[in-house]
Amino acid sequence: MSDLQVKGAGFAQKIFDDVREMSRDVLGVTRQGYSAKETEVHNYLRSIGESLNLEIVTDRAGNLWMTLPGQDRTLPAFVSGSHADSVPQGGNYDGLAGVVAAMTVAWYMRETNYTPKRDYTVLVMRCEESSFFGKAYVGSLGMFGQLTEKDINLKHRDGSCTLGEAMASCGVDLKDVTSGQPLIDVAKIAAFVELHIEQGPTLDSQESARAGVVTGIRGNIRHKAVRILGEAAHSGATDKPYRHDALMAFTDLIHRMDVAWDEWLANGEDLVFTVGVLKMASSAAISVIPGEVTFSVDIRSLSTDTVERFDALLQKTAEEVAAARGVKIEFDAKLFTKPSGVDAQLSDALEASAKLENIPCMRLASGAGHDSAVLGNNGLPVAMIFVANQLGSHNPHEAMELKDFMQGTDILWASVCHFDD
Amino acid sequence: MSDLQVKGAGFAQKIFDDVREMSRDVLGVTRQGYSAKETEVHNYLRSIGESLNLEIVTDRAGNLWMTLPGQDRTLPAFVSGSHADSVPQGGNYDGLAGVVAAMTVAWYMRETNYTPKRDYTVLVMRCEESSFFGKAYVGSLGMFGQLTEKDINLKHRDGSCTLGEAMASCGVDLKDVTSGQPLIDVAKIAAFVELHIEQGPTLDSQESARAGVVTGIRGNIRHKAVRILGEAAHSGATDKPYRHDALMAFTDLIHRMDVAWDEWLANGEDLVFTVGVLKMASSAAISVIPGEVTFSVDIRSLSTDTVERFDALLQKTAEEVAAARGVKIEFDAKLFTKPSGVDAQLSDALEASAKLENIPCMRLASGAGHDSAVLGNNGLPVAMIFVANQLGSHNPHEAMELKDFMQGTDILWASVCHFDD
Repeated sequence: MSDLQVKGAGFAQKIFDDVREMSRDVLGVTRQGYSAKETEVHNYLRSIGESLNLEIVTDRAGNLWMTLPGQDRTLPAFVSGSHADSVPQGGNYDGLAGVVAAMTVAWYMRETNYTPKRDYTVLVMRCEESSFFGKAYVGSLGMFGQLTEKDINLKHRDGSCTLGEAMASCGVDLKDVTSGQPLIDVAKIAAFVELHIEQGPTLDSQESARAGVVTGIRGNIRHKAVRILGEAAHSGATDKPYRHDALMAFTDLIHRMDVAWDEWLANGEDLVFTVGVLKMASSAAISVIPGEVTFSVDIRSLSTDTVERFDALLQKTAEEVAAARGVKIEFDAKLFTKPSGVDAQLSDALEASAKLENIPCMRLASGAGHDSAVLGNNGLPVAMIFVANQLGSHNPHEAMELKDFMQGTDILWASVCHFDD
Repeated sequence: MSDLQVKGAGFAQKIFDDVREMSRDVLGVTRQGYSAKETEVHNYLRSIGESLNLEIVTDRAGNLWMTLPGQDRTLPAFVSGSHADSVPQGGNYDGLAGVVAAMTVAWYMRETNYTPKRDYTVLVMRCEESSFFGKAYVGSLGMFGQLTEKDINLKHRDGSCTLGEAMASCGVDLKDVTSGQPLIDVAKIAAFVELHIEQGPTLDSQESARAGVVTGIRGNIRHKAVRILGEAAHSGATDKPYRHDALMAFTDLIHRMDVAWDEWLANGEDLVFTVGVLKMASSAAISVIPGEVTFSVDIRSLSTDTVERFDALLQKTAEEVAAARGVKIEFDAKLFTKPSGVDAQLSDALEASAKLENIPCMRLASGAGHDSAVLGNNGLPVAMIFVANQLGSHNPHEAMELKDFMQGTDILWASVCHFDD
């Protein structure tokens, strides 16, 4: 174990514990974006930044920037961080892990009297989660002036206020965040690296690699409600040739897509496919052949081409199943979110740094979205480090092990050190 | 078209029209078993029996017996009929068709001054449908004293009264119908033939055969709630090898059973298989891999062996799918209803009679249960004639064509004529 991993663990653990205590809810933690609670957490993190003698500013969207000055202050900075908010009754690590990793690196620089070549900045973003107002990446979008009037007018899910009112209560000028103009000087940033818990089980299933470098953030095509219309009939009195069973047509269609999915994976495509919701007609009964089912579709990939071709295959296969079984299959409009790339050179540098530190590391896709995508889409070179995590995310049971976290943090530290090699 | 088919149509149509008018509801017709409405219909039918000079008795379970005396009154009678009740807001033909067919044959005997060799009796049973009290075949079971205390205490679905109270209001002595002793003299019945609309689409899909002879009444194995337990996870962040998708396991299992079903049909087995209900966990969402689904199973066949082997195959296949996909599949207890046979000789006689009359006729299974099964299980030789029917049954849109009905009635008439050949 490296010196950072040994010595930094206590510093990191204290922040995790303090912030958990500060935001404890009935189950897990709750840190709503642009709430007094999120501000309290930001103030706590700022106080630690002050104790490390960092230069601290808050941008006009409310995000916190804490800089450890480098040797050459004319060079653009290496920035690292994540968001400090959480979903309601969520876990402690989604977001906060990236903030604590970035701060632990700053702490270690001070501890070892290390001055990086260029400025090193910890970025704590606000309101990444969409749970309360239905809008994600609010802090990072606001930083680029990219919120809309519609976003600002979104109601809190309990009806108590709008997103704009919540932001204003935290000192945000709504004109700035909807101006279309960045509130920060992009030219002053050389790179942004975000460490995050993995929200799937890939890393946690590995023996050696407990940290990974992200290959991209998956985009998706979704259908909220695809309908299959068959014909309800008596389950005992209707022989097979006369059936138009909507549920049996569904199993046929989805089974064919499951087989195709295996083939596409074998061909090296990045693809996940999920039917998360299936609803039957209210008249469904044990002795009635289903006349109607409705289901959702979620197709994700790092490649726009892959999601579009798989959606086309789904629709073509649906036509075949409909013809074979005498049912009608109606697709609703598809909702498309494009994949986000990461900076290839920066990602290679992260992997090379892990090798230098002898930290086992793998490449993997991010299935969920992140602030990094917003920064990357605005022209910044971004990369992400994932850390193994147990029991999923967006739930109170999130469980990251500190030793895995410290390996990820070590990769971050090494990549800052070697950035200008 | 035979003389009966031409001349009897008007008589039959008038009864259908009168009874429909008498029991018209917002949608379709409603004739609740053991209600004043059902009694009104029985009284109307009795008045027609009186006009045909039939000998009329009501048994102690409230069923109506109307006899046209034969040449040799010492011989056991040929009995035909069905039930006169309906489901709430149901169609006019389920049950009533068999009553009208039997009465039309009696009318034609009078019309042509025909005296059958043995007594010919029209039987109008009560309360065959289970919709109001949750118990089926009440009139026919009561006729054999085979109702239980539990049956008698069943509450009407609107909570207004018990089945026993409803029966008592129609003059039924509850001690008799639960006595375990038949209220009728079985030795005085030579055969029972029930004409009924087919409750599936087989006959209505035929060019020539619009009537059929039933090969048996399917039994079934049911499971109310089979559970698949997988693991809920993020739809974007969880790659295929790490998924335990309960809904995908369901589609795999049911697809395999669908393929097996085709094979069993090709091997000549009688089999229908239905998943009528599928429910997801309340946490189901478009971006969550399903962690749990529950579904019903309904397997029916004329053969007990077939339903038992198909259920065993389902359970074995479930084990294979569970192992392959890392899910748990839990079966609830199976509910078994045994198939009911029909009398082979009597059924052959029906088919032979159809041939004599040049009426195209096919053999087919009954998927739904009927009073005939109760009479057959009590040792009476029973057979059934099915008539083509449109738009299903147990709904207001039931639509039997009179010319199809008259063909079925003609088969009944011919089989009475030739019964003693």
